Amino acid sequence: MTPVPTDSSVRVVALGGTGEIGRNMYVVEHAGRMVVIDCGVTFPNPDQLGVDLVLPDFGYVEDNIDRLEAVILTHGHEDHIGALPYLVRTVGPLRVVGPRFTIGLVRSKLDEHRLLDKVELEEVGPGEGPTIGPFRTEFVRLTHSIPDCLAVALHTSAGTVVHTGDFKFDHVPVAGTPTSDVAALAKLGADGVMLLLADSTCAEDPAAPQSEAGVGRELRRLMATAPGRVIITTFSSHIHRVQQAVQAAYDDGRVSCLLGRSLNRNVGIATNLGIMDVPPGSIVKKPRDLENYPLDEQVIICTGSQGEYMAALSRMARGEHHQVTIHPTDTVVFSSRTVPGNELAVNDTINRLVRIGASFVTPSSHPGIHVSGHGTSADLMWMLQLLRPEYMAPIHGEARHQRAHKQLAVRSGVAPDNVFCIDNGDVLEVGDRGGRVVEHIPVGLTYVDGLGIGDVADEVMRDRRHMADDGVVIIVATVDVENGGLIGDPEIICRGFSSADDEELMAETRLAVERSLAGSGPQRVDDLTVVQHQLHDAVATMLKKRTGHRPMVLPVVVEA
Amino acid sequence: MTPVPTDSSVRVVALGGTGEIGRNMYVVEHAGRMVVIDCGVTFPNPDQLGVDLVLPDFGYVEDNIDRLEAVILTHGHEDHIGALPYLVRTVGPLRVVGPRFTIGLVRSKLDEHRLLDKVELEEVGPGEGPTIGPFRTEFVRLTHSIPDCLAVALHTSAGTVVHTGDFKFDHVPVAGTPTSDVAALAKLGADGVMLLLADSTCAEDPAAPQSEAGVGRELRRLMATAPGRVIITTFSSHIHRVQQAVQAAYDDGRVSCLLGRSLNRNVGIATNLGIMDVPPGSIVKKPRDLENYPLDEQVIICTGSQGEYMAALSRMARGEHHQVTIHPTDTVVFSSRTVPGNELAVNDTINRLVRIGASFVTPSSHPGIHVSGHGTSADLMWMLQLLRPEYMAPIHGEARHQRAHKQLAVRSGVAPDNVFCIDNGDVLEVGDRGGRVVEHIPVGLTYVDGLGIGDVADEVMRDRRHMADDGVVIIVATVDVENGGLIGDPEIICRGFSSADDEELMAETRLAVERSLAGSGPQRVDDLTVVQHQLHDAVATMLKKRTGHRPMVLPVVVEA
Repeated sequence: MTPVPTDSSVRVVALGGTGEIGRNMYVVEHAGRMVVIDCGVTFPNPDQLGVDLVLPDFGYVEDNIDRLEAVILTHGHEDHIGALPYLVRTVGPLRVVGPRFTIGLVRSKLDEHRLLDKVELEEVGPGEGPTIGPFRTEFVRLTHSIPDCLAVALHTSAGTVVHTGDFKFDHVPVAGTPTSDVAALAKLGADGVMLLLADSTCAEDPAAPQSEAGVGRELRRLMATAPGRVIITTFSSHIHRVQQAVQAAYDDGRVSCLLGRSLNRNVGIATNLGIMDVPPGSIVKKPRDLENYPLDEQVIICTGSQGEYMAALSRMARGEHHQVTIHPTDTVVFSSRTVPGNELAVNDTINRLVRIGASFVTPSSHPGIHVSGHGTSADLMWMLQLLRPEYMAPIHGEARHQRAHKQLAVRSGVAPDNVFCIDNGDVLEVGDRGGRVVEHIPVGLTYVDGLGIGDVADEVMRDRRHMADDGVVIIVATVDVENGGLIGDPEIICRGFSSADDEELMAETRLAVERSLAGSGPQRVDDLTVVQHQLHDAVATMLKKRTGHRPMVLPVVVEA
Repeated sequence: MTPVPTDSSVRVVALGGTGEIGRNMYVVEHAGRMVVIDCGVTFPNPDQLGVDLVLPDFGYVEDNIDRLEAVILTHGHEDHIGALPYLVRTVGPLRVVGPRFTIGLVRSKLDEHRLLDKVELEEVGPGEGPTIGPFRTEFVRLTHSIPDCLAVALHTSAGTVVHTGDFKFDHVPVAGTPTSDVAALAKLGADGVMLLLADSTCAEDPAAPQSEAGVGRELRRLMATAPGRVIITTFSSHIHRVQQAVQAAYDDGRVSCLLGRSLNRNVGIATNLGIMDVPPGSIVKKPRDLENYPLDEQVIICTGSQGEYMAALSRMARGEHHQVTIHPTDTVVFSSRTVPGNELAVNDTINRLVRIGASFVTPSSHPGIHVSGHGTSADLMWMLQLLRPEYMAPIHGEARHQRAHKQLAVRSGVAPDNVFCIDNGDVLEVGDRGGRVVEHIPVGLTYVDGLGIGDVADEVMRDRRHMADDGVVIIVATVDVENGGLIGDPEIICRGFSSADDEELMAETRLAVERSLAGSGPQRVDDLTVVQHQLHDAVATMLKKRTGHRPMVLPVVVEA
């Protein structure tokens, strides 16, 4: 990417997070220096076989590492911080700036990866932040489904860039302090915002914004009428949801128990930082301690809202949890939305609960049991009206959400030509010469697969798909190095091939091998590659015709 | 299953369709004879790697084929007729009874499978049907999202069994005739229904029933305001939806064109049978003919509502359709619900349309654009009130839907102990000795995989999953038959293994092979299995440690 932006302009590149939901990572450049905002992961879809995580493409940061000042984190969700350890492993030591709870989560994460010594962690709060190279920072408290979320304003000599992070407006605080600083946003707007980068997740949703406090009221109603134990599953970082559940349980004369590793870790960090506020004695530490209470005086808060196979609720539903058994009088509350792609897994959990006899409650049957942390179109309009940006780029969303957000921006008064639905890799330059996409950096998907990063080639994924569909058939043939003749019977090894037990077919396969090798007799084994190609084609064609399958055929010709 | 039911009782076994949505197949037995109601397929979920279709377990029918009188079909959806060709291939010639349009679809399907001569097809209409062994049949017209749906009553000396098929009540006919024969149901109820088997799909849904005619009105509104072409995607067998779209287009001064193989086949069959009624000249046959009309005088009706990769809309969205290119002024209407599991594929289609600039309409944004063919709880209550069965089994649904339906049945007055949420394989006996599940027949999943039926063993599926996750590493080692020593370098073949390009790792693998074979030197190659086991463990352990992966390791030791 050349040339480096001047003092009178700012450049923004999404390395992940536009045209998709997940793996947010945005580069902001000015006067030859750069900061990265967020560094998140996505979980693979079913087509990405064997992949553990999907990361942003770090290539551009690697190539320009000498110009990187710091990574700024807006909040602690995995799609905003999850890739940080991999970035450190790729580019080395980093300065990382973020709100307190986020830094707490990142510290724990880096510790797990044994990378804590490589990162300089720096907590920031609302208001003026550190000056980072040519960027004077300012942070604004906003509301989202995790505590301690900050929008970031980067003041530069070219103008101010605001990145909202994920947000909604919620004027009813669950914690003690107001959750969105509208006045600070209005002041930023009054002083002038050149470019706004804003969360597009719920831009299509015309519904009125809903307060998190309403979920607390709904939980109280459910507990008051539940015939027995109440089991609540939600996202493990949704500290205020957990706090409301524990408080509601306490007020209803129930004790709470938290189940799930990530939930206990996150609540532990929040408690240590004084972010979580629940009555003393309202939580029992060990599931075993629940036995001291009748079922209708118990609440369990647990992981598994997405049907994750190893999560607490999923194991309970399968009857495989060592400490908790589902009772027919239990009411299981899904205080969560189902992330697209997880529908079948969540449904499986529900059906297992039903077979045990338990009741279940979902947002479909009880809409008040969950509210989104992302602002609907009304909130996005508020943000646009408060900041009145000259240029705007809808980020954090798929193409459909970005377009809907663009339509809102235009309706709020931003000139249509000044709104950019950028894709990952597009280089958006904004400054005294106007705004435009000046370049496109090739960016791809980076996979975490086992211990490796980024090492799953397209070919590897294609082979996995091939073997997943039809399996593999390995042909081992020993041939005489003198005359190219077959020695002994060829060996056929099948894995994942559904006709492997068909004796007749296997005999036919051996025959095809013999014929193929006999055919290549004259040219002998001078060119093993040719022989193997012929062998492959002969066997693959025969198997396709006979079985309708196209297993991966791998001929191994050994000379003896 | 012994003993065979007596003249004073009836037995019902679901071979597929309970505890799940899909592959409906119910056996009804009386006086030693049996009929099968429906014979459908399910499409595989992403875990069922490489599987084309999932069938009911035919084992029980195979074992009792001499007692089978006929297969009765209630309507023509794939989850009710799709497995018929495979049943014929498994058990031989059959008598098949069903409504006219269903028989038309089945005829076309059997013809494709070249099995038409094996099946005696018999059309039935509403009213008295043939007597089939000890079963006197009676059919009642009901409404669903495909024309020509019949509930079936089996009158026996023990009492009457009613199977609803899939249904809702819709008193506003799209076609000329009333769509549900309420009077016939009331008469059945008055004469006495012993056992009701009824569709549970939407039992959880408290919404008021909605008429198909309303969709027609919504389509008219959309066409009246659409700036350009309107592209409508829906289920290919939903003839009345297609008819309404074509009529709305005609009234708006547009021509229609149908795209998609299954859609054209189904509409062709419906037209030949006089079931589809559209104005002459309202449909152009060839997509090319659309070029004679401006965009805003065109409607395209096409397949692809589920994001199926090869369907017409999916190919248009990818820019890979040979005859139709999406325009930015196009409005694409998803007149369909998204079947669970297809969410990501449908969303991908939508995002591709957005990138081209087209508008889209879904039931989320326009609820009137689709109505379900399954009755909500109000309709199910109507059915229960009309038939007043003594015993009831909720079928056609997952455990959650069956339980919700049971609750409705109990509220309608059926004794709680007389409602049976059966699972596939449960043998429900109802008669003069009351009703109870007397036995459970083991039933499994039968897969269609390539040309084979039922031949995907659990082990094959496990191997596919293993290779899909981590690939395969094949070790070819040639050893001296005399002393067990390695001859030459071992060959390493990797497929789907993401570290295959790591030269250092490959060298280390070869070293592990050499060490393992050297270690097995003394015992020589007397026992090749032991040598291969050791080789497998040595390489697998090393690869796991170095890469975090567990590829399938296949050692091939060749003696020379």
